Amino acid sequence: MCTRFTSILRRSGRFYLFLISLMLMSFTFQSTKPFRIVFFGDSITQMGNEPGGYIDLMRQEISKNGLNDRYELIGAGIGGNKVYDLYLRLEEDVLKHKPDMVFIYIGVNDVWHKLWGTGTDADKFERFYLALIGKIKAAGADVALCTPAVIGEHTDFTNQLDGDLNRYSQTVRKLAAEEHCKLIDLRRIFLDYNLKNNPDNLDKGILTTDGVHLNDKGNRLVADTFLSEIFPK
Amino acid sequence: MCTRFTSILRRSGRFYLFLISLMLMSFTFQSTKPFRIVFFGDSITQMGNEPGGYIDLMRQEISKNGLNDRYELIGAGIGGNKVYDLYLRLEEDVLKHKPDMVFIYIGVNDVWHKLWGTGTDADKFERFYLALIGKIKAAGADVALCTPAVIGEHTDFTNQLDGDLNRYSQTVRKLAAEEHCKLIDLRRIFLDYNLKNNPDNLDKGILTTDGVHLNDKGNRLVADTFLSEIFPK
Amino acid sequence: MCTRFTSILRRSGRFYLFLISLMLMSFTFQSTKPFRIVFFGDSITQMGNEPGGYIDLMRQEISKNGLNDRYELIGAGIGGNKVYDLYLRLEEDVLKHKPDMVFIYIGVNDVWHKLWGTGTDADKFERFYLALIGKIKAAGADVALCTPAVIGEHTDFTNQLDGDLNRYSQTVRKLAAEEHCKLIDLRRIFLDYNLKNNPDNLDKGILTTDGVHLNDKGNRLVADTFLSEIFPK
Amino acid sequence: MCTRFTSILRRSGRFYLFLISLMLMSFTFQSTKPFRIVFFGDSITQMGNEPGGYIDLMRQEISKNGLNDRYELIGAGIGGNKVYDLYLRLEEDVLKHKPDMVFIYIGVNDVWHKLWGTGTDADKFERFYLALIGKIKAAGADVALCTPAVIGEHTDFTNQLDGDLNRYSQTVRKLAAEEHCKLIDLRRIFLDYNLKNNPDNLDKGILTTDGVHLNDKGNRLVADTFLSEIFPK
Repeated sequence: MCTRFTSILRRSGRFYLFLISLMLMSFTFQSTKPFRIVFFGDSITQMGNEPGGYIDLMRQEISKNGLNDRYELIGAGIGGNKVYDLYLRLEEDVLKHKPDMVFIYIGVNDVWHKLWGTGTDADKFERFYLALIGKIKAAGADVALCTPAVIGEHTDFTNQLDGDLNRYSQTVRKLAAEEHCKLIDLRRIFLDYNLKNNPDNLDKGILTTDGVHLNDKGNRLVADTFLSEIFPK
Repeated sequence: MCTRFTSILRRSGRFYLFLISLMLMSFTFQSTKPFRIVFFGDSITQMGNEPGGYIDLMRQEISKNGLNDRYELIGAGIGGNKVYDLYLRLEEDVLKHKPDMVFIYIGVNDVWHKLWGTGTDADKFERFYLALIGKIKAAGADVALCTPAVIGEHTDFTNQLDGDLNRYSQTVRKLAAEEHCKLIDLRRIFLDYNLKNNPDNLDKGILTTDGVHLNDKGNRLVADTFLSEIFPK
Repeated sequence: MCTRFTSILRRSGRFYLFLISLMLMSFTFQSTKPFRIVFFGDSITQMGNEPGGYIDLMRQEISKNGLNDRYELIGAGIGGNKVYDLYLRLEEDVLKHKPDMVFIYIGVNDVWHKLWGTGTDADKFERFYLALIGKIKAAGADVALCTPAVIGEHTDFTNQLDGDLNRYSQTVRKLAAEEHCKLIDLRRIFLDYNLKNNPDNLDKGILTTDGVHLNDKGNRLVADTFLSEIFPK
Repeated sequence: MCTRFTSILRRSGRFYLFLISLMLMSFTFQSTKPFRIVFFGDSITQMGNEPGGYIDLMRQEISKNGLNDRYELIGAGIGGNKVYDLYLRLEEDVLKHKPDMVFIYIGVNDVWHKLWGTGTDADKFERFYLALIGKIKAAGADVALCTPAVIGEHTDFTNQLDGDLNRYSQTVRKLAAEEHCKLIDLRRIFLDYNLKNNPDNLDKGILTTDGVHLNDKGNRLVADTFLSEIFPK
């Protein structure tokens, strides 16, 4: 029986190398604390921590591979959060867990909420994001940055907020490069998926239920993408 | 000496056909009123009627070709106008001139002014636009519809309002098809121009002074495009 | 048995004068068309035309007084309408009825929809409103202008949009004075009612269900106010 | 010669008591550091630190009274700041000065910037404000909270943002009460001043140059108000 997770590893042709490194790790880190990963974000991450959500799916894969005592995944998503909300609760919800790695998945509400007057200025989005990265790195954890995926799944850039979403994604890409962080370009990944699987140019229902929040396929895509990042080929 | 205007015609390889038809027209319409064209729009059109503006450039071309008594161009642009402002002043500023043709060049402010709370809903944009077309056609004039060109000249869809501008342009294209109007797809034309001439992905200065209002090159591009429409090849 | 409507008249101390004038009218207008009143507005008026709504309540009072063949009330409200939407459908929904009197009850959405980007500029609100008045008067009907009542029922001006609502109401008051129209100052009337009946400074539930749309008491208050206007003391 | 500052004290009838306490302080604190006050805010405070600004006026009064070595005033205002910007730079710009007292004067931009999409939600305004207070108190300083004064000087609540400004001021008043901070109700003070001195209901020019930023009279009023708070009668 071959799980999706091992198939990811196998596809990369480095499966045995990985197994060996796992054995080495189990030798080295015997009776040490697990590798702790915090997913830090908004409602997408909050729902990702529920059954069937992307964090739950990742836990299942890790469990299937018998790595439960090696990896601990912590969901730290709160609905409606923007980048400065993450900054406000960074200590309490992330750093006190002493994480080894933090996925920052934010930006949708910073753009979306402009529609009713309370989004985030582009320059301040960057400033707060940079402050987040600095504090997490100072605490000794790795940081992975995710671009905000979609607000509407049209593939021809006719979603109302595509302009800003492209722009804020550029900021995230720039920060990842400048700050030497991992980049998980969900916006690019979602667009590529939709270009293949959304021939009728629908605005929702492909990877999301409502244009923003992930459906089963969306959660699966994010889970697989993040697993590939945690277990790089 | 070959003017830009005749070169447009000559490039099409139908120059002599055009001259013959002009002679026929001059025979047929001798001592009749000129073909009257109204340009109906916002500040872009208001500025287009000033020296160096796109309407002024068109008048110059027409004059160079000795067609002054055959064509009358009327500028009817007012700064800040949205589609419903055109509807309010349609009778007074357009129909009372008994035009033969009307160029509707609107939509930038309908999208742009959303930024400070007073843009136009997409469904109402379509409804008022359709009402404009209906009334102008009922008055016996041809209607040419222009897509709103740009709010920012970035070519990678990172201008804040690209999503909406793409969407409202789709509406204009749909209306042109359904209502059998000429379509002048300025958004497409401007993007193509920028893809060739804006290698640094600047947000202004290529065809506009500020991302919205036309510079000399922009006025020239619009003038040439409209002339090609009035004198189809 | 004395209905609310007759009590209004009786309170004024001119009841018998009114009865006499009714008899004179019934003599004069015998077998003529009834006095036709159109209520022109948004969702508040659309709901006002449903059972229990303010127009329905007015019809009931008129019926109780045996004036059914003298007065015809027509509801012309559409949800989401702003002043320019009224302008778009004025001919079709109002003037073709050849009304004797038109109540314009608009402005809430012009302010409210600013929250998501598609409200109406203050100067354009005035311009379209004035155009409405002009066209209705030209058609020979009386015009009564209503100030937009409330968006939130707090009485200490802490409702988010109180500033704009006060300002747009000032515009309506000014137009009524300048254009010699009847003014029905619902904003003032609702505030006075709330100052007496909303001691806990609630934001809804006194005259509205949601801060905007009328509950039973709100419909009753508007019906009585409008009846007093139609049957002035 | 009697300066404005001493006249404030004298009016209170406790001038000599104050002088005595000053002498006691000078005895007690001989060769200690001065009482350090930070003014923490937005462009109003940034401009307040320039010549003629409210902080400059306060320094002049303190100097006239020979208290230069007793009081140190630090301006920490940055244009465009909202409450969460203060939170981001609290350590660097305020706490590292080890202040004895901090005036928080924020809120105008949190409301104002809603007009172009990047204001602050009411609940988050409160949350960040509370976090500011908590951190400043934890650092051992007194906190004085100022309500946001005006965006427009109309006195009849027809300024577009009066509703929100009243609401956010209520939040500041509530926080002052709950957190036992000093309250400086500039909104109330400015309104009272305008009710007396703005008979034509102008929207600017009484205490501000543009409806928001202080003119000479505005800077004087704020300086006097803050001095009364620092030297309570």
